[in-house]
Amino acid sequence: MAKETADVLKKAKAARAAALDLAMLRDAKKRAALRAMAAALRKNRAKILKANAIDVGAAERQVKAGKMSKAMLKRLMVDASKVEEMARGVESVAKLSDPTGIVLSAMEMDRGLVLEQISCPIGVIGAIFESRPDVVPQVSSLCLKSGNAVILKGGSEAANSNKILVDILTSAAESVGGFPKRAIQLIETREEVRQVLELDEYIDLLVPRGSNDFVRFIKDNTRIPVLGHADGICHVYIDAGADLGMAVKIALEAKIQYPAACNAAETLLVHEKVAASFLPAAAAEYAKHGVEMRGCPKTKKIVKGIKAASEADWGTEYLDLVISIRVVKDIDEAIRHINKYGSKHTDTIVTSSKTAAKKFFDSVDSACVFHNASTRFSDGFRFGKGAEIGISTNKTHARGPVGLEGLVIYKYLIKGSGQTVAEYSGPKAKKYTHKKLK
Amino acid sequence: MAKETADVLKKAKAARAAALDLAMLRDAKKRAALRAMAAALRKNRAKILKANAIDVGAAERQVKAGKMSKAMLKRLMVDASKVEEMARGVESVAKLSDPTGIVLSAMEMDRGLVLEQISCPIGVIGAIFESRPDVVPQVSSLCLKSGNAVILKGGSEAANSNKILVDILTSAAESVGGFPKRAIQLIETREEVRQVLELDEYIDLLVPRGSNDFVRFIKDNTRIPVLGHADGICHVYIDAGADLGMAVKIALEAKIQYPAACNAAETLLVHEKVAASFLPAAAAEYAKHGVEMRGCPKTKKIVKGIKAASEADWGTEYLDLVISIRVVKDIDEAIRHINKYGSKHTDTIVTSSKTAAKKFFDSVDSACVFHNASTRFSDGFRFGKGAEIGISTNKTHARGPVGLEGLVIYKYLIKGSGQTVAEYSGPKAKKYTHKKLK
Repeated sequence: MAKETADVLKKAKAARAAALDLAMLRDAKKRAALRAMAAALRKNRAKILKANAIDVGAAERQVKAGKMSKAMLKRLMVDASKVEEMARGVESVAKLSDPTGIVLSAMEMDRGLVLEQISCPIGVIGAIFESRPDVVPQVSSLCLKSGNAVILKGGSEAANSNKILVDILTSAAESVGGFPKRAIQLIETREEVRQVLELDEYIDLLVPRGSNDFVRFIKDNTRIPVLGHADGICHVYIDAGADLGMAVKIALEAKIQYPAACNAAETLLVHEKVAASFLPAAAAEYAKHGVEMRGCPKTKKIVKGIKAASEADWGTEYLDLVISIRVVKDIDEAIRHINKYGSKHTDTIVTSSKTAAKKFFDSVDSACVFHNASTRFSDGFRFGKGAEIGISTNKTHARGPVGLEGLVIYKYLIKGSGQTVAEYSGPKAKKYTHKKLK
Repeated sequence: MAKETADVLKKAKAARAAALDLAMLRDAKKRAALRAMAAALRKNRAKILKANAIDVGAAERQVKAGKMSKAMLKRLMVDASKVEEMARGVESVAKLSDPTGIVLSAMEMDRGLVLEQISCPIGVIGAIFESRPDVVPQVSSLCLKSGNAVILKGGSEAANSNKILVDILTSAAESVGGFPKRAIQLIETREEVRQVLELDEYIDLLVPRGSNDFVRFIKDNTRIPVLGHADGICHVYIDAGADLGMAVKIALEAKIQYPAACNAAETLLVHEKVAASFLPAAAAEYAKHGVEMRGCPKTKKIVKGIKAASEADWGTEYLDLVISIRVVKDIDEAIRHINKYGSKHTDTIVTSSKTAAKKFFDSVDSACVFHNASTRFSDGFRFGKGAEIGISTNKTHARGPVGLEGLVIYKYLIKGSGQTVAEYSGPKAKKYTHKKLK
């Protein structure tokens, strides 16, 4: 135990040291390292598959013994096309523009005294994840591209796969002259995740990848900022002024296009003025696609024979072909419902009224608020970010689909010529010019 | 106890409700409310002084009994000019430009499908503070201007002052037609601060105001993001290429201009090549201004008779006329020292070498990194922000001196015309245009 703790601390310190060196790298160097990493993944495909086979073999025995779900086993499996996918992912991150070193604002405080706000890496990112070994190249490449070191903690079920991947990526990156050593750290001990959660002195930001319960556990047990979301309880609200054809199309897609995604809808809210005309059409489509409906009393009067929605339904992320439906008096009731039961992720209004859309935009307290578009658009790639580190429901730092911009912060630089604050105070004070330069 | 808990929860819920209404306000309304608040402070000056006299009376008895410091009593005292200062502060916040509703970026995802990233309030800000009743108007005005509700928890020693101030500010704000009720909540129970720290469901960001220990306690005991800093261990590094006159001037000011400030220097690092020429001149100035010096062995060889610096000195924020001095081999050793012992607040290099300055900018992992300027410039007003909510040493959200921009986040809006994700996938997929509009 003591040895394992010491080992984790040693790795955390190594990551911190690497972070300081990474912060000084130019983009060309980072791009070269990422390209070497992609090439190494392809070159070592056989090794990766062999290591993964060991994990998969053990997992299959767990599944047979009823100790692991088939879904988890599936996420664990790596084949040749998955390795190619990993390599392509790393290459595409390499091509993104460097998010660091950008002058975000600049101000002349006085002649010869210039203030610059410049983007820079955060430092050390901690990634905690279950099963999926493809998280290793994906998160590592995003962290290195943004100049951060990364500490990875995967599940024991993927121990062999994760280790070979980190070994391959590390030696490829370090083969590029001048690239810092030990920028990717894998914590392999059998220690609980809890140990990583206590590394607030060494980890600046945690990126969890896993189930809702997994993310919630992490958020509840660490002082390190967590970038992510637990639930995705998204709503589609059909307003009185909705085009009903569009409304049915969006209500259906938001539920069925990929029900297991966090940006799929869980609850449909319908203005009472259009309930009688909209609900039968929507219900017919849902029924056709095997969606179970659970309705409020008013919904049940219009759509006969469906289950009653309980209070618990409004706060449930089904991640399945189930939808709860509620008829509301007006847009205000819809907004109140969303802000009360939602998870501040993604909510959409279908309406032809610009006033209603404006009200929905202003009042729904969610990361993504849409008008006449499916909730499923809430995604880093669809948003044109080129990559996604996660979707955040936080109210600070980064919100919604987060790309490389969520892995950087800024620092303030002053370029002076010997000035002291005393010169700008007192009766003979020099005056600040505070001239905005950018 | 149960009643008090219920009371706190009721106030937290009221703040959350007010926050949703505040998010919809136009700037004109917020400005009107802030102006009314300033006027009300002036009009009710006598009431404020009377309430404050009760707190001050009780505090004086505590000081006599040795249970309170004189400094704390001083911070508690409000006089006529302090009330005028409060009113002016609120007025100056009113005049700042609204940080919400700004389109930060915009992208055409496809024709008729536009993505906007727009700044918006965070929601509910929690302010925990000791003694100083002037925190009430200052933090309240910054929160309201940025569209946030605020929950204030002051110390019991200022209970009467805080209550009258919140009453005055609240009724003034609510006298403006359409301004949300209960946007400023004061928690008055005798409950511990701990109760507020557990309100992570209702408070989105905490702003602590108080001693280092106070801020550290808050950071260590809450899951709510905290905007602030505990220590301010700032460094002045005199490089081999420094103008020695400038070096002495900056080294002196950074220590003596206001030693109790977080941006005052605690440690002076000196390149060994200039130690023999620079240190005697600096030491003479320090001695003249009553600064106690504590030196490393090399320093003690040059500046005779000063105390030896212990390992603990490098990590101590004196907040007083004391400075620790260390001679370093080169800029790398200086940077390592700063990144190891510093508090990631503000550090400055004095040098004529652009290469050295660039290295210092890139490698010092602090919120503010300066070249040929005093550490004392690290301040929201000097940075031209017009206001300061605090100085943050966090690596996420907001860093360095933070103005209104630290009290806002953003949301993503999509303005569509009925699009679904399914249209953009599969063999007949429409293509995203991803055209940057802003």
